[in-house]
Amino acid sequence: MPSVEIVAVGTELLLGQLVDTNTAFIAGELARAGINVHSTQCVGDNRERIAAAIRTSLSRADGIVMTGGLGPTVDDLTRDAVCAALGVGTELYEPALRAMEAIFAKFGRPMRENNRKQAELPAGSRPLDNPRGTAPGFIAFGSEEQFVACMPGVPREMKPMLVEQVVPFLRDRFAAHETIVTRVIHTIGLGESEIDYRIGDLFRSCENPKIAVLAHEFRADVKIMAKAPDAAQAEAMIAPLQNELVRRLEDGVFGYDADTPASAALALLASQHQRLALAESCTGGRIAAALTSVPGSSKTFVGALVAYDDSVKLSQLHVDPTTLQRDGAVSEEVARQMARGARTHLGAGVALATTGIAGPDGGTPEKPVGLVFFALDDGTQRSRAWTFRFDGDRETIQRRATTTALNLLWRYARGDQEP
Amino acid sequence: MPSVEIVAVGTELLLGQLVDTNTAFIAGELARAGINVHSTQCVGDNRERIAAAIRTSLSRADGIVMTGGLGPTVDDLTRDAVCAALGVGTELYEPALRAMEAIFAKFGRPMRENNRKQAELPAGSRPLDNPRGTAPGFIAFGSEEQFVACMPGVPREMKPMLVEQVVPFLRDRFAAHETIVTRVIHTIGLGESEIDYRIGDLFRSCENPKIAVLAHEFRADVKIMAKAPDAAQAEAMIAPLQNELVRRLEDGVFGYDADTPASAALALLASQHQRLALAESCTGGRIAAALTSVPGSSKTFVGALVAYDDSVKLSQLHVDPTTLQRDGAVSEEVARQMARGARTHLGAGVALATTGIAGPDGGTPEKPVGLVFFALDDGTQRSRAWTFRFDGDRETIQRRATTTALNLLWRYARGDQEP
Repeated sequence: MPSVEIVAVGTELLLGQLVDTNTAFIAGELARAGINVHSTQCVGDNRERIAAAIRTSLSRADGIVMTGGLGPTVDDLTRDAVCAALGVGTELYEPALRAMEAIFAKFGRPMRENNRKQAELPAGSRPLDNPRGTAPGFIAFGSEEQFVACMPGVPREMKPMLVEQVVPFLRDRFAAHETIVTRVIHTIGLGESEIDYRIGDLFRSCENPKIAVLAHEFRADVKIMAKAPDAAQAEAMIAPLQNELVRRLEDGVFGYDADTPASAALALLASQHQRLALAESCTGGRIAAALTSVPGSSKTFVGALVAYDDSVKLSQLHVDPTTLQRDGAVSEEVARQMARGARTHLGAGVALATTGIAGPDGGTPEKPVGLVFFALDDGTQRSRAWTFRFDGDRETIQRRATTTALNLLWRYARGDQEP
Repeated sequence: MPSVEIVAVGTELLLGQLVDTNTAFIAGELARAGINVHSTQCVGDNRERIAAAIRTSLSRADGIVMTGGLGPTVDDLTRDAVCAALGVGTELYEPALRAMEAIFAKFGRPMRENNRKQAELPAGSRPLDNPRGTAPGFIAFGSEEQFVACMPGVPREMKPMLVEQVVPFLRDRFAAHETIVTRVIHTIGLGESEIDYRIGDLFRSCENPKIAVLAHEFRADVKIMAKAPDAAQAEAMIAPLQNELVRRLEDGVFGYDADTPASAALALLASQHQRLALAESCTGGRIAAALTSVPGSSKTFVGALVAYDDSVKLSQLHVDPTTLQRDGAVSEEVARQMARGARTHLGAGVALATTGIAGPDGGTPEKPVGLVFFALDDGTQRSRAWTFRFDGDRETIQRRATTTALNLLWRYARGDQEP
């Protein structure tokens, strides 16, 4: 089986100033092409260390896909490190230079001498076009047919270069005979140990398809990975295992693959021809953002009132001023009135409301930071409210409250007696 | 200088199913403690490969900080790999077992045999408490004073374990004599080459403090990193360089360090005692979410109407039905009316509105996917509208429209003639 390693370059990654999302994207594309990735590395902007990382990876794999360090500044050392590791010099690639000139003309920016150097690539390499930026990529070649494919670190430049140029090169190169298909079963409310207890026998006995469990905040994903000559055969291997896993985990399964709690809730509500509105206080628009991420959400989602100031709760949601005065904005009754107000005034069949204290300020002994009230109103006896207390900083509390709101909505839409 | 490497374990990281955010968090904490990280690795759930990664890192560094692979399932192989790499066996740690039993009792979950094994740690290691989860961590020791600190992969368990237990261990260990202080200057609207042209001389001549440029979507960060015996001395080294950089980049500088376009805009509006409202259509609550991420935003941000359905634009924002009919919901005039409606009906001094086509459906030749209208209304002659066309998929368009909206707001608040 061919194997490739990924090397990401950038001191900012080693100082914790930037999360490396490129490696995950590259790994996902390589997996889909049936190419194994056993290890990845990340190194700083230091020519000797980059060259050492290249040598280490080439000692274990057939080639490397690299990202970062191709820009015009002195900190961009990937090309020089590749030359050092492979023992080749550079040469000027006229077509790469012409393409760069065209890009600069298009962007209306002056092209400087430091940009010109970006067209000097390792001798014998194959240039990679970069229509979205100024740094051309390249695939350099070492002895024994090994290769180093280098792409910029800017995701919007790297991603199309990978998909359109590097992956086709790799498929040709390896005449890739296998593909990996992954099915993700999304669960909620089941602990990792509980999942292991229910499906541990399958988990331990299955090699291909293989099963993996991945724990998230408040939820866990069970992944089935099948390796086969083509996608149809992989799907056929997945199907019976998927049925058995879903049977055992059913009470917690909310969706598959790209499904999110938001898309699962919207799909159920759409099938019931329900129209949904929101009244968000402490979640500040995050629930609406999650719902509107789903293509076609406009069929079900009417809108939201982000009622951050109390005056907006009164004027737009028609919360009773006496209640607001007596119970405070962060209270179960205000949450209920917000939900009712959103449903009636935004013209929806069902509405969800949140009000709480995200912190860091505003907490009291009676109403501490992290306290959040949720209410759901559909004009029937199913209308109800919940109280939660979340740990964490402002961002964590807002995120947990948003996930919880989406879960309550999904369980309501599924018809749970006690969402 | 002491140096430590980071190793993240998990096949899901190598299949692109999960972005590794742990490495960046660990790297950031180590940098603050003055500990160098020259390389990081990521390996799959394979005992031999994990052991090989440990040996590789120990050949270059004084120790390793690892995350992942400590759970109760057969896929959790970090402990066994550490034992193999260091040549030690396991032993049962009674206190770790007792702590786990207490956690299970607290969570109300049955403790199973596979959990019990998690209390078997490499012989001679120091256990690390995990009050937020069931997997204890540990610091194992090899020959020549080298160490391997292992933590769970779940971020909410790993982060406190790192900050409260591992970093203090490292500080003791290395009697850390240096600290690194970083200052980030956030710019917008200046290309990477333009920044290099303006500050390249400083960039190339400075070693300590060192300068790095990091390009994002529509913006770039200039980072100054100073290494000194303590933070005060590092700050004193940063100050003159920061002044010079800001002088040269001034037209694009919107903030420092943790500042975001949202916090920068809110701070300016707050200083002017302005109250802000939003009317969001295609951005679906994302601008409100960005604003409410900022602690204290409730002083300035009144609320938002996420007017996803046209009926909400009419009923809540009082958009003129004739205009909506004639120009369509995605039009400059509707954007202007939405902004005016949000300002007057939500009770704000200034309001920003968005309406556009996020796709993937709904585009036409005249109004293609990615077309977004923005309007700002403060009841004066400064009220105006903008038209943008963004490339990308639904998520990218929504994200770019949100960033653009925040920029327009910041430039308006700064008093730019032509934001």
